Amino acid sequence: MLHRVAILGASGYTGAELVRLIATHPTIEIVALSGDRKAGMAMAEVFPFLRHLELPRLARIEDINFADMDLVFCALPHATSQAVIRELPRALKVVDLSADFRLRDPAEYQKWYGKPHAAPELQAEAVYGLTEFYREQIEAARLVAGTGCNAAAGQYAVRPLIAAGVIDLDEIVIDLKAGVSGAGRALKENLLHAELSEGTQPYSAGGTHRHLGEFDQEFSRVAGRQVRVQFTPHLLPMNRGILATVYVRGEPQAVHGALSVAYEHEPFLEVLPFGALPSTHDVRGSNFVHVGVVGDRIPGRAVVVCALDNLTKGSSGQAIQNANLMLGAEETAGLMLAPLFP
Amino acid sequence: MLHRVAILGASGYTGAELVRLIATHPTIEIVALSGDRKAGMAMAEVFPFLRHLELPRLARIEDINFADMDLVFCALPHATSQAVIRELPRALKVVDLSADFRLRDPAEYQKWYGKPHAAPELQAEAVYGLTEFYREQIEAARLVAGTGCNAAAGQYAVRPLIAAGVIDLDEIVIDLKAGVSGAGRALKENLLHAELSEGTQPYSAGGTHRHLGEFDQEFSRVAGRQVRVQFTPHLLPMNRGILATVYVRGEPQAVHGALSVAYEHEPFLEVLPFGALPSTHDVRGSNFVHVGVVGDRIPGRAVVVCALDNLTKGSSGQAIQNANLMLGAEETAGLMLAPLFP
Amino acid sequence: MLHRVAILGASGYTGAELVRLIATHPTIEIVALSGDRKAGMAMAEVFPFLRHLELPRLARIEDINFADMDLVFCALPHATSQAVIRELPRALKVVDLSADFRLRDPAEYQKWYGKPHAAPELQAEAVYGLTEFYREQIEAARLVAGTGCNAAAGQYAVRPLIAAGVIDLDEIVIDLKAGVSGAGRALKENLLHAELSEGTQPYSAGGTHRHLGEFDQEFSRVAGRQVRVQFTPHLLPMNRGILATVYVRGEPQAVHGALSVAYEHEPFLEVLPFGALPSTHDVRGSNFVHVGVVGDRIPGRAVVVCALDNLTKGSSGQAIQNANLMLGAEETAGLMLAPLFP
Amino acid sequence: MLHRVAILGASGYTGAELVRLIATHPTIEIVALSGDRKAGMAMAEVFPFLRHLELPRLARIEDINFADMDLVFCALPHATSQAVIRELPRALKVVDLSADFRLRDPAEYQKWYGKPHAAPELQAEAVYGLTEFYREQIEAARLVAGTGCNAAAGQYAVRPLIAAGVIDLDEIVIDLKAGVSGAGRALKENLLHAELSEGTQPYSAGGTHRHLGEFDQEFSRVAGRQVRVQFTPHLLPMNRGILATVYVRGEPQAVHGALSVAYEHEPFLEVLPFGALPSTHDVRGSNFVHVGVVGDRIPGRAVVVCALDNLTKGSSGQAIQNANLMLGAEETAGLMLAPLFP
Repeated sequence: MLHRVAILGASGYTGAELVRLIATHPTIEIVALSGDRKAGMAMAEVFPFLRHLELPRLARIEDINFADMDLVFCALPHATSQAVIRELPRALKVVDLSADFRLRDPAEYQKWYGKPHAAPELQAEAVYGLTEFYREQIEAARLVAGTGCNAAAGQYAVRPLIAAGVIDLDEIVIDLKAGVSGAGRALKENLLHAELSEGTQPYSAGGTHRHLGEFDQEFSRVAGRQVRVQFTPHLLPMNRGILATVYVRGEPQAVHGALSVAYEHEPFLEVLPFGALPSTHDVRGSNFVHVGVVGDRIPGRAVVVCALDNLTKGSSGQAIQNANLMLGAEETAGLMLAPLFP
Repeated sequence: MLHRVAILGASGYTGAELVRLIATHPTIEIVALSGDRKAGMAMAEVFPFLRHLELPRLARIEDINFADMDLVFCALPHATSQAVIRELPRALKVVDLSADFRLRDPAEYQKWYGKPHAAPELQAEAVYGLTEFYREQIEAARLVAGTGCNAAAGQYAVRPLIAAGVIDLDEIVIDLKAGVSGAGRALKENLLHAELSEGTQPYSAGGTHRHLGEFDQEFSRVAGRQVRVQFTPHLLPMNRGILATVYVRGEPQAVHGALSVAYEHEPFLEVLPFGALPSTHDVRGSNFVHVGVVGDRIPGRAVVVCALDNLTKGSSGQAIQNANLMLGAEETAGLMLAPLFP
Repeated sequence: MLHRVAILGASGYTGAELVRLIATHPTIEIVALSGDRKAGMAMAEVFPFLRHLELPRLARIEDINFADMDLVFCALPHATSQAVIRELPRALKVVDLSADFRLRDPAEYQKWYGKPHAAPELQAEAVYGLTEFYREQIEAARLVAGTGCNAAAGQYAVRPLIAAGVIDLDEIVIDLKAGVSGAGRALKENLLHAELSEGTQPYSAGGTHRHLGEFDQEFSRVAGRQVRVQFTPHLLPMNRGILATVYVRGEPQAVHGALSVAYEHEPFLEVLPFGALPSTHDVRGSNFVHVGVVGDRIPGRAVVVCALDNLTKGSSGQAIQNANLMLGAEETAGLMLAPLFP
Repeated sequence: MLHRVAILGASGYTGAELVRLIATHPTIEIVALSGDRKAGMAMAEVFPFLRHLELPRLARIEDINFADMDLVFCALPHATSQAVIRELPRALKVVDLSADFRLRDPAEYQKWYGKPHAAPELQAEAVYGLTEFYREQIEAARLVAGTGCNAAAGQYAVRPLIAAGVIDLDEIVIDLKAGVSGAGRALKENLLHAELSEGTQPYSAGGTHRHLGEFDQEFSRVAGRQVRVQFTPHLLPMNRGILATVYVRGEPQAVHGALSVAYEHEPFLEVLPFGALPSTHDVRGSNFVHVGVVGDRIPGRAVVVCALDNLTKGSSGQAIQNANLMLGAEETAGLMLAPLFP
């Protein structure tokens, strides 16, 4: 049985990544693509790497007939998704890849995104899309909110530790290294090759990055009390990949054990042997997550490192994994592509 | 029906690329892997990006039982394949990815590789593995010789032009830009990140590159007379990808027409609209080839540009495509993965 | 004696490169900087890598007092220089880094740049800034036109060969590989790190690149007859550097000899031993040019390869070298910085 | 007055960087170069980027006449310096760039480097080469030990904070991002372009990196009690540059103030305005260090970020700065080169 889907915002990186993954998906068929400023163009013009595929032309959202579809992937820019999704037929399932429905609390949304939410009723309904921790709710959901890519990397390292009670909740430092595609196809000087290659720098430091809203919401929920982490992301000269280096207080072996147990049956989560740490090279272009733990020389302290591909497991791969659950397909369908190395 | 295969030389890049592609191949199963110096190790230790797969441990070739296999991929270093393949059971089909069986003429082999061939009888039997031009012979072959990756790129640009008689055979210049993985996992100073990134240089210039042996053999065969091209490869700071910029004498539209006709029904060859030229970004990690043509301002001259991924279509993807034909599988099985972009 | 200069257009890459080089120049002092859209800002805000220097703030051109200056470097965008330079005091020497005064013939300017020249009287006066070939005129000039960076690389490889009569004038192919800073600080999708790194593609192919105007003008002038070359530039994933691979017809040793003689006493031109070819890695950040020659296996054909840094010798270093001559300073003053490797 | 120097170990990156910097140094003259395995070769063969310089050929150390020299830079591999330096004439000043004399305590040396020190009497005499904090001792020293490049970056961020008493000494986390040239010209798979570009990973995590020996020694000395930090270095796809992100407990403004005061008169240390954080792009190829501070959202916590070039300020630039002091030259002589950007 084929599932008919539309991708809204197909001219950005997460939209293109959805198309890339669906290209070899056994049961999902793309029947509409939107791309506002590029409406009317063929995808092969916008993304020549997709030219071997037969795809619908980019259309304006208002010209798309959603009548006979099963699901919509909404890869629109932050703050524009909410209005669009509100207008979609209620019968349609929706996976949103923007930040619009990640935070459940309207006040938190306003705090981190600077304006009131336009569809608070949907905000309440949306399920947070970190598949491994919300699987049952996602299966039953109409609207799933894709997580932030950095937020996903941090949570894969930390959530099981909070749940297992093996770390100090007040002493969590997440130092994160992110590839540039996480910033999207934005025309900014600091994203130019000439200014980004061969160097690195922090950004949104000091507790100002919006994904902190997700950390706060999710970690506090798991802990049953307020948890606030320190978080410094860095921009690296690589296109894909996030490496989260997390400093925690807890017995290293207990930390490793909690992760091993939590991910034992997960198809995409690989916990490395104790002492081994992951590399973003080993997950590039794939839906896999590698997590490793090492003990510090200072007793009672551990370093947890998590690597994933921001566009795949951090965004579009996660979206397809969730869509698979929502559509009743095999959860891993279309997602078992091995990473690209070298 | 499953096809059982071994990969000899699985600890190098082309070996790992075979595993990557077979990971999602519907009918090929890997039953043995060899890696001489790394025998005994798990693939996850040698290539952590493959750790989600259940794979046999690396073995020494002499410890592999070839009895119940259908096909062997031989990804050993140049000059070592010939002795190994000579000892394999005759019932086994073999796809060799080394240079050992690319040249049919023992004298040419000695000229370009500097020593006599150890298995000239197999040399005569081997079919040259440029799929689109040897499809029927490959289907019937026991031993197929994978092409040089640079040689493949140049031939996709030029062969149909020679066959169609639309270019001057004595005025062909191939200026080629190659990613570093084509040099293999070799420990050389010029392949270090510090010495390769952020710059470029030619190598094996002046008619000394070994892939000229393939150009000579194949172009002369198609032309029915001796054809010798100029060929300058350059090493670029990118891991995958070959871009061949070919300067020819001929009517540009006729050149474009000859390519369009030749590749009209080919599943992996994409001829761009006249005037559009390809980018290696658009084929990375895939089995697709993009070819474009532009006319020069000097009448009667054209530039043909061909882009492919050296490890995929230039090597391991080609090998699987050929194996599919030899095994009676769907030619494109396991190879429709879209390129990775960005 | 100090020379007082202004840099107009200091917020772009060539402007910043001028400041970088002048930072250790013994006799040049920067007394004014312009940057239209960033007027009022400190250079340390626009280019933090210059924050250790005491520099004037960016001003609007109309707010600069040119009264007591010796020379102006004009690093404004193409087509805007001509109007600005026309209004500068006649007593001021000017080195223009834009394309505005490279072509002497107004018709050629219009052909390549698409509109009439606004200051044809200055166009006639301007001296073409390829220092090694116009040294005496530059010493006496009021207005010197910096060359195109690609045009410089091609000319260093070819000019002496035309002058010495050792090559066929109708069979010159220049295949060029260029780093991305040559495109300036422009906000374009294809210059983003995510779309440029790890791949390559041609641009302005088929005889459409504007630097062909310079090749036509200069090569024809040296030859005393019309010379038209083929020229295909490629964009490479590197920030600095141009490698021009030039295919010529001529005796390789004669070709090497002509270059060796021409550059024997040049402080910045290094001709490699016959058979050795240069790398852009070896000139990065410097004013040096490396040129090498190899003979092809086809008799009577040679490949000449030239490497330089587009921002230094291809633009701002050349500009300072010319300014040194115009100001009566040591020609090499401030320019003997060794390349940055690795 | 010219200072005559030798560089031992000139075929590695730090040796080449010394030559690069000395090329425009006003008073230092290179009179001998050693390179064991490459003895007899010209530097232009080993490092073509230096071919414009007139340099002595590489010699074996035993063939060098040290009689009329002022100073020797010893850029030999770790553990080989100590035996060589012991044999040098006592009248010679020595700047050692290896790890051999960084630790004063023989027991600490053995702990971190795995064997007894061969010249413990020199170990006691050596002055630790972090110029800004040992300036007077360096001026008077015969033997100065260059610091680890990572150790330098961490100390520039933290030393003044310990000295000023503005941070908690038991809660210091240094998460460091390092370019690949810090690993030297070593032939290792993980340093190949194909395995390093486009990704990142930690190394020597969990308190095992040897530069911890320096942190322990120096921080404890400043504090007057034992201080042990957490330290996780990461390998980044960039050739030069170190970014140390340091998590401390203290009032952010006090932290910024302590750094501002400490570096107020330092020629190479730039403290950014409060809230601004540095980039390695802005110090590449230079002797400058940029330091920034931001306050975390959690009160009483701050993030200090330090950027420097590992080969320049982290190694060879530091060595020349120290040599300048030892030779009575201007401290900044030859070191005011602006960074290379882009």
